[in-house]
Formats: sequence, structure tokens, C-alpha cells
Amino acid sequence: MSHPPLDAVLAYVDRERARFVDDLAAWCRIPSISSSPEHVGEVRRSAEHLVERCRELGADDARLLETPGHPAAFAEWRVDPRLPTALVYGHHDVQPIDPPEQWLSPPFEPTVRDGRLYGRGVVDDKGQVYIHTKAIEAFVKAGAGKPPVNVKLIVEGEEEVGSANLDGILHEHDELLRADYVVVSDTAMFGRGIPSLCVGLRGIAYWDVKIAALALDGHSGSYGGAVPNPATALASMIAKLHDERGHVTVPGFYDRVRALPEDERRAIAALPFDEPAFLASVGAARVVGEHGYSTLERLWTRPTLEVNGLSSGWQGPGSKTIVPATASAKLSARLVPDQDPEEISRLFETHLKRIAPPGVKVEVTFLHGGRPYLAPTELPVYDLAKRAFSRAFGKPTVFIREGGSIPFVRTIADRTGKPCLLMGFGQPDENAHAPNEWLDLENFHLGIKSVIYLYDELRALSGR
Amino acid sequence: MSHPPLDAVLAYVDRERARFVDDLAAWCRIPSISSSPEHVGEVRRSAEHLVERCRELGADDARLLETPGHPAAFAEWRVDPRLPTALVYGHHDVQPIDPPEQWLSPPFEPTVRDGRLYGRGVVDDKGQVYIHTKAIEAFVKAGAGKPPVNVKLIVEGEEEVGSANLDGILHEHDELLRADYVVVSDTAMFGRGIPSLCVGLRGIAYWDVKIAALALDGHSGSYGGAVPNPATALASMIAKLHDERGHVTVPGFYDRVRALPEDERRAIAALPFDEPAFLASVGAARVVGEHGYSTLERLWTRPTLEVNGLSSGWQGPGSKTIVPATASAKLSARLVPDQDPEEISRLFETHLKRIAPPGVKVEVTFLHGGRPYLAPTELPVYDLAKRAFSRAFGKPTVFIREGGSIPFVRTIADRTGKPCLLMGFGQPDENAHAPNEWLDLENFHLGIKSVIYLYDELRALSGR
Repeated sequence: MSHPPLDAVLAYVDRERARFVDDLAAWCRIPSISSSPEHVGEVRRSAEHLVERCRELGADDARLLETPGHPAAFAEWRVDPRLPTALVYGHHDVQPIDPPEQWLSPPFEPTVRDGRLYGRGVVDDKGQVYIHTKAIEAFVKAGAGKPPVNVKLIVEGEEEVGSANLDGILHEHDELLRADYVVVSDTAMFGRGIPSLCVGLRGIAYWDVKIAALALDGHSGSYGGAVPNPATALASMIAKLHDERGHVTVPGFYDRVRALPEDERRAIAALPFDEPAFLASVGAARVVGEHGYSTLERLWTRPTLEVNGLSSGWQGPGSKTIVPATASAKLSARLVPDQDPEEISRLFETHLKRIAPPGVKVEVTFLHGGRPYLAPTELPVYDLAKRAFSRAFGKPTVFIREGGSIPFVRTIADRTGKPCLLMGFGQPDENAHAPNEWLDLENFHLGIKSVIYLYDELRALSGR
Repeated sequence: MSHPPLDAVLAYVDRERARFVDDLAAWCRIPSISSSPEHVGEVRRSAEHLVERCRELGADDARLLETPGHPAAFAEWRVDPRLPTALVYGHHDVQPIDPPEQWLSPPFEPTVRDGRLYGRGVVDDKGQVYIHTKAIEAFVKAGAGKPPVNVKLIVEGEEEVGSANLDGILHEHDELLRADYVVVSDTAMFGRGIPSLCVGLRGIAYWDVKIAALALDGHSGSYGGAVPNPATALASMIAKLHDERGHVTVPGFYDRVRALPEDERRAIAALPFDEPAFLASVGAARVVGEHGYSTLERLWTRPTLEVNGLSSGWQGPGSKTIVPATASAKLSARLVPDQDPEEISRLFETHLKRIAPPGVKVEVTFLHGGRPYLAPTELPVYDLAKRAFSRAFGKPTVFIREGGSIPFVRTIADRTGKPCLLMGFGQPDENAHAPNEWLDLENFHLGIKSVIYLYDELRALSGR
């Protein structure tokens, strides 16, 4: 088999540019909301859709990997056992659409406006998965009928709900998922058109906290001011979780946090961080946070503790004069090396129960956790990936970190000991978890070319 | 017209005891659920049923008072213009029956078990209205053919849905409702068989508070720890509304609160308050509240500030990793003399905006307010009412207060300037708003006699 002519492959991508977007839109029409019990069938249909496309592209193996929850999709192109193997990870499940009335076009009817594709899942993460499958398509249709290296595609269906069965998949299909390099495309570039290789991810610990005070809602005239109010109790506890300098007050929380090396601190400071644009992207009035750290340092290198939701008593229109029986909150911590989610969860639960006011019961449920990740950037493949990215985008590639978590990365890194390339093609302002999620179609196009260069360079690195 | 022979009147009540219960049961068979659109006709039928009974008892005027919602029933016995007039207030609408499966006998097939009548509305408030009509019946049938004073009966059909048209009724029928004394039978006695005159009601101010921090929910990995979190902000603000001694911290909140007189404090302390039963009734583990006050003092004589509801971000099952865009709360204060809801609302809003952390917008909506009520217990009619109550029950009558609000009382007190007698015949454990509502039939029987003594004494007080 001869090395495919790269110009022909890239020309194919230019020629099929519009149709690639149509293909992506077709996949994004499937509402694969993994957190919604009513959408179980749709998540499966989404995995089947991808498997079918991979079969059409000549995959040597393409099938569902079943789990106790939503299925993952798997596909493999076996080119030559002497060539390196890239294991590409993504996910085909998507976030809920709430609040639905804020979408300017229906979330599951992908719509192109101003060079962007709008719809749920277009960037997180179906668009990024398709960057790989379309790169493979270009090699298959315009090149040698196969990609230039062995490629395995693992696209899970539970990323947005904590990847609970991912460990099981990796364990059960250990052999199937062996590879020399791991490529993850589920992150964002540092800014518009700045190719960025992500070398660090925060971990996470996520909890459901329930405060129970009464057996039933009490009339606020008959009980107010004389029995414990769980909503007030919850508020007082949340208020105690940070001190006035923005530090988390849970004892032991920072014990395992690595200090930020001076050279990385300087590299972060040198990045063209656009604070007004950052604030505008989410409509915030100002930055806040832990004293003593810049915004990027806070987001990338420091742990946080955030309230993700609150619920208690009467929430409808008008008034209901009750002392609520219960109150609950969703809370989560973003973790950095070397914090451990299980340990942090124990510290958090102990602390919450200690600061609970008298007369209420506190129940903490640890919903899921994921450890943080730092890439071994001293390996040559990181320079190679930078180069591939820069060839497509025509700009220098920067190392960045990501404030979010991708449980797969940490898990596969531990299991295989292989380097993970976090090559993301999203942008930070693309509303990944909000209404009007969008994908920059230029990034989609150049992303496909980046992956073509990457696969080509990986083959070159192997000397074959 | 001669004063009716009281013994004969009381003997009639003893003789007709069982039939009175049957008559009440007949009225309670009409499912006059005012909150249910399907029951509009039944609420009207309930009002008509009462009007018809009053006509049979020789009322000089008996008719529906129409409103834009459910009709009220009105009846009047004009005995002598030189005699005092009592205006009796009650309501003929009832609560919904949810959850229906918890009723041991059908809610609209009133059933006698163990000296109690079970059924929806038996105590709240049809039974208490019938205590007055049966007292009148006894005077009519066994006495002088008329009650000993002029009596006006106003029985509204919207008490359980907020009495929205009550002001309109009072305004439209100003002349019709003029009286010397107002008697309200819609409260509970302090405990089993303890005759109780309620002399104070708390007022209320109710708010919707919205905290806005972001234009849309942000991914907690991408924004957490760097932009304001409205749920955390709301929690910190709520936590600041009380100090560690349970006092409300809103500046000026207590400025108009009347100190509790030592004699009333002693009288409250002398009441046989059953704290374990109070806690058990709502399933609370312990009492809490403002330091320096007993539970009854907190409920009756001190203002409160309670959270009635909380809402922010993700509240469904599982997790959603967001920094919520907004957070909101329902809050309300119970007010005591001489606090003014409008003034308290201004103080509250100013304070909330002052304690808001940087980067969030606070919006306070004043949903509704009602002023507190204290009866002018220095007037001789209060001793008279105590005496009437005690003659029937054979026990000393206590002054109590009520932590809740009855909008009619404050409104009619302001309109007429006349004393209100809150003479309730319910018991706190009769499930007024829950399944298996019941009425103690001994209280019903003695209640009728209490009203007979009351009307008789009111005539005597007038010197005629």
C-alpha cells in the first residue's frame, strides 16, 4: 500500500465542504440526551447512526459496545500492524436543551447562520467526532482507500452524565482499545483560529446535597420562626464554603494541590487572554474568584467549589406561605493535580455535616468523580501534533489547559500509559452546555485538515 | 318582643343534637372546592343551600352576593334597630381532597366515627358556620322566633383561594354589612376542649427575589471559579438575614415592634403548650428561633423572615455541570403590631441590595402584604365573649393569638372600627387542609351553646 497523495486528500475536503456539514447536521438531528430517561432510544439510534457511517467508510470493524447504560460506538480501520495506532475518543451523547424557549432555532434542527452551525451537540461533541470521520473519509475516498495509520474510534454515550460505564468498557474491551497514541477531540481552542493543544484537565467531584427538616411543608404562619427551615439552613451552609478571599474552606481541600511552576505561570500570562470577550461570552459583569491568581490560573490550575443548582419549597408563580420540608443543592468541585475525588468527597461530606445548623438532616450523595490530568509534554509527539495543527490553521499552536474534565483521558492514560493528544476544535464561546450551541464551520473545515496532517505525520514519525 | 327563655333554647340544642349533625352532613355533601374549575357549580350550590336554610329560619333577607368569582351567602335577622348587630363571618368553600386515597371514608360522604364527624369542610369552615345558624335555629324554634340581637351572616366562597373578591364585597355592600361587633369563627381552640378567644393575627409581606449573574448558564469547567455564581450569591445573602441569635438583621426591621407586656407574657407562659405534639404535627426534630422568646412568643408576638422557596440551575436527577445564570427565592416576613408591610418591604429591598456580592443584579418584587391585627381587648365585649365561651364549655377561656393571617379581620376592623371576636371552635389537629378532616362533635354541640350565650350576653350588654 502506498502513502496516499496528501494534496488529493486535502482537495477532497475542500470540494466536499458543504456536504460534510449536511452529514453532520443529519447526525445532530438525533436528540441523544443521555440524562433524559425518555431519550434512551435516541441515544442508541445516535450510536447506530455513527456505526453505519463508519461501515460505509470501509471500517474493518464497526459496532456498538453495550454497557448497562447507553451504548458506545466503536470502529476500527486496520491498515498495517507495523504502523502506529491512534485511538480517537469522543462522545455522541448531548446536554439537555433547557431552557428550550431560549433557542433561536430548534436545537435538533441544525441550522446554518453566518458561517456557524447551530444545534445541540454540533460542537460538543458530534462535530468534533465528525472531524475525524471526515478526515478518514477523505483518505478513503481520495487517497489509498484507508487512513495512513491504524485508527480506532471509541465514541461513548454517557460523557454528559459522568461516563459511569466508561471504565467498564475499557476493562471489557482492553485488547480492542490498545493503541500507541490517544487523540481526544472534545476541548476548545484558546481563541478564534488559535490552534491549541490542551495539556491539562481538571478533575471533578459532583454531589447532590439534601437537607431535611420537616416531615411535610408547614404553614409559615403556624410554624415559621419556630422550627428549622431547610432552605435557610442550606443557604447558611453554602455561604460558609468560601472565605472572604475566595478560598474553599473545606479542611484539607488544598492539601494535595501542586504549586504552579513559575515557567508555566509566565507562559499562561503570555497568552492573549481577552477578559472582556471572556466575560461577554457568558454575560458576566466582572471576574471574581480566589485571591492571588489570574483568571486563567483560576480556571486551569486551581480547584473550585461551585453550586450548580438549588431547589426548595415553592418555585412557581405567586406565593405559597410555607416552611419547606426539604431543600437540596447540586454542588461540584473542579480538581487539579494531585487532588483525588474520593478523598475530596469524604472531606466535603464531613465538613458539610459539621457546619449544618441544629435540627436538620444532611444527606450527601457523591454522584460522580474524575481525576485531573497533566500531559507528558516532553514526548516528541506533542511537537508533532502542534505542527499538524499549525499546518492546517497557518498559525503557531499554543499549549493550554482546560478547566473542564474528560474522565476518559485520565482513565485511558492510566490504563495504557500512552500519551494523550487533546486536540480540540471548539471555541470557548460556542455555548456547549447552553441554548444556541454552535460550531464555527471554518474550524470544522480546518479541523478535518489538521487531523489529516496529524495522521500523516504519525505515519512519518513511525518511519514507514 | 320578650327576651327568649334561655333554658328552653339550650334544651332544644340538647334535644336536636343528632339532627344538627345530620343537617351539617347534608351541607358537607356538596363538594364546594373553590380552587377547582370543575366545581364552580358546586360552590354555587353550597351558597344556595345555606341561603335556603336561612330562609327557613325566618331570615328577613337571605341571598347570594355575586362576585366575579364564587358567590358569597348573606342572611340577616333584623330584630330591633335599638339592639346591637353582630356580623358573623365564615366561608363555605373547602380545600381540595388530595391525596384522595388517604381518606378513610369518602371526603364528601360525611361519616361519624368515635364522636367525630369526618369529611371535607366539616371544621373548615362549614361546621363553624353551622354553629351560628343552629344557635339561631334554637332561638327561632324554641324561643321568641328570632335571635336576641340583630345578626348578619356573611359566608364567602373564596377563602381557600385567597379571598380575592372580599374587598369588593365589603365595598359594594358597605351598608348591608354594618354592625357593632364582628364575630369570626374560622380559627382553632388552643387545645382539646380549651375555649380560646384569638386576639391577635400576624401580618405578612411576601417577596420574589431574583439574582442575575450571567446571560446564560455557563459550563462550570469553563467559567467556574472565575465569574459570579448567583446561587452562591443568593445563599450568602440569605445567610446574612439572621444573626447567630436568630434576630432578623434588616436594619429597622424591629423599630415598630411593640414590646410584649409582662402580663401577656405570663399569660402565654401559663398556657398548656404541648411542644412534643407541636413538633410531631410537622415532623420537626426540635424548636429553633429568635433567642429570648418561647415558642409561642415566637409564633404569636414576634416577626419572622422565612425562605418559602429556592430555585436555581439544575434541579433534575443526576448532574449538570453549570454555573447557573440566575437564582431566585421566595421570602416572606410575618409581621406584628405595628410593623407596616410596605415599610418593611422598602427596608428589606434596600438591605438585600446592600449585602449583594459584587457582580450580581438583585431584583425584589413585593408580591403581597397584609397588616397585623391586635384586638382591643380592653373593651368589655372581650370579657363578655370569654364568659359566654366558658359558660358553655365549663372551663376558663384563654386569650390566644394566631401566627397566620386572616385578611378579612384586618380589613373589616379597618372599615368598621368595630371589635372583632375571633371565636373558633376547631382544634389544631383536625386536619383542616389534609385528608381525613374531622370535627369534634362535642365542640360542635358546645360551640352552638357558646354562641347562644354570646348573643344573649350581647343583648344584655346593650341594656335592653
